[in-house]
Amino acid sequence: MGLPHLISITGAGPGDPELLTLKALDRIKKADVLLYDALQGNEILAYARADCKKVYTGKLCADGQDQKVRQEKIFRLFMLYADQGKKVVRLKAGDPMIFGRGAEELRFCKAQGLNYELIPGITAALAGSSAFAVPLTERHKSAMALFYTGRCANGSFNNLPAVAAVLQTGAPLMLYMGLANLPHLADKLILTGLEAHMPVQILSKVAQPGQKIRTTTLGEAGHFLATQQPETPAVIIIGYNAGII
Amino acid sequence: MGLPHLISITGAGPGDPELLTLKALDRIKKADVLLYDALQGNEILAYARADCKKVYTGKLCADGQDQKVRQEKIFRLFMLYADQGKKVVRLKAGDPMIFGRGAEELRFCKAQGLNYELIPGITAALAGSSAFAVPLTERHKSAMALFYTGRCANGSFNNLPAVAAVLQTGAPLMLYMGLANLPHLADKLILTGLEAHMPVQILSKVAQPGQKIRTTTLGEAGHFLATQQPETPAVIIIGYNAGII
Repeated sequence: MGLPHLISITGAGPGDPELLTLKALDRIKKADVLLYDALQGNEILAYARADCKKVYTGKLCADGQDQKVRQEKIFRLFMLYADQGKKVVRLKAGDPMIFGRGAEELRFCKAQGLNYELIPGITAALAGSSAFAVPLTERHKSAMALFYTGRCANGSFNNLPAVAAVLQTGAPLMLYMGLANLPHLADKLILTGLEAHMPVQILSKVAQPGQKIRTTTLGEAGHFLATQQPETPAVIIIGYNAGII
Repeated sequence: MGLPHLISITGAGPGDPELLTLKALDRIKKADVLLYDALQGNEILAYARADCKKVYTGKLCADGQDQKVRQEKIFRLFMLYADQGKKVVRLKAGDPMIFGRGAEELRFCKAQGLNYELIPGITAALAGSSAFAVPLTERHKSAMALFYTGRCANGSFNNLPAVAAVLQTGAPLMLYMGLANLPHLADKLILTGLEAHMPVQILSKVAQPGQKIRTTTLGEAGHFLATQQPETPAVIIIGYNAGII
């Protein structure tokens, strides 16, 4: 631990600079290089030194190949700046370990012998829960809460029985990157026996200007999304007492 | 929203002051009254003004009646200080909406017409995941992650099929306040068909001095706890690739 941390894989939270941790802010201020993804606002980047090199590592989304190329490019940047002895902050929206590819990047650092640290961040579902007073857990009502992504599933949702089982207990599902897949997922959940009137809350631009919550149900989700256009990024909370408060 | 926020229900994170958010720190510094639970360290309280009234709301744990009395006492303090126009910070370990009774307190504020805000915090499982480089989600490996409490279950674990179903997908379970119930839970999970060698990681005093990770398995958990005494607080990560990194 005597060595400087060369690569700080850092959660930036949902976008509101006020939801940065003190530790994340410290690392951003000290960074020689900032590797960042879409962060919905430049206020966080503005904390960096004027001579800090800021590299947008982009979102080459769409198909799997692009993501792979992009990740390899990020790894090359890790090696490049580590060789130069730079303090690198790898800034990620939310928390690096919740659908943030932190696992892949820390595996790379371990494999290459790079010095690294991980700094947790406020993940979107927790930010949204507080921003809109949507409870997630509660005594005698919800003893669990499930993070789930609609993205990696490629529309197959092959883990659907587990998801449905959690919702059946009365606990909520916090769906990340799930807007496009929501109608399909909702249909499948109803087929497992969940009630069509189960609440669905769509939290857009959480902790950012223009944040908004919209409420629908499993049964109405398809029609709702066909007629409304919730802004992204969005995190979706299905089930439990969503909507009661 | 022109009114001052009288009661800030605030997540303090796992105990390390560096893992406070900027927003939480701001509210603590401005507080007239700080209502706090056990926070494992006084560094966070030290941010408050010298003339800030600090009230330890204690942990009268053990049975349900005590908890109820304690919660009612906290509600009376909300009313008392709100009547006096004080800026109250209700400081909670971790995140207020994850096993933090934030839901109950915000319901009370709503019902009484008290002005309130919620500030999210770094919950223990995310802090632990980063502190010990234990991945939670990963492409093609873990598409979900489940928060679960061993406490409210009273040993019955009546939602066990849902918990087991999540673990069967290869995703992890993040168990809060579960040390006492772990041997019983582990036995029950094995009875559902989970493999006895499924990894169990016990993360003690996360992000605090003396933090430590210990590894066992579902099959060995009972014996392990009978011979070792992991420090509390502890968050437990069961399944997935816990232990691989």
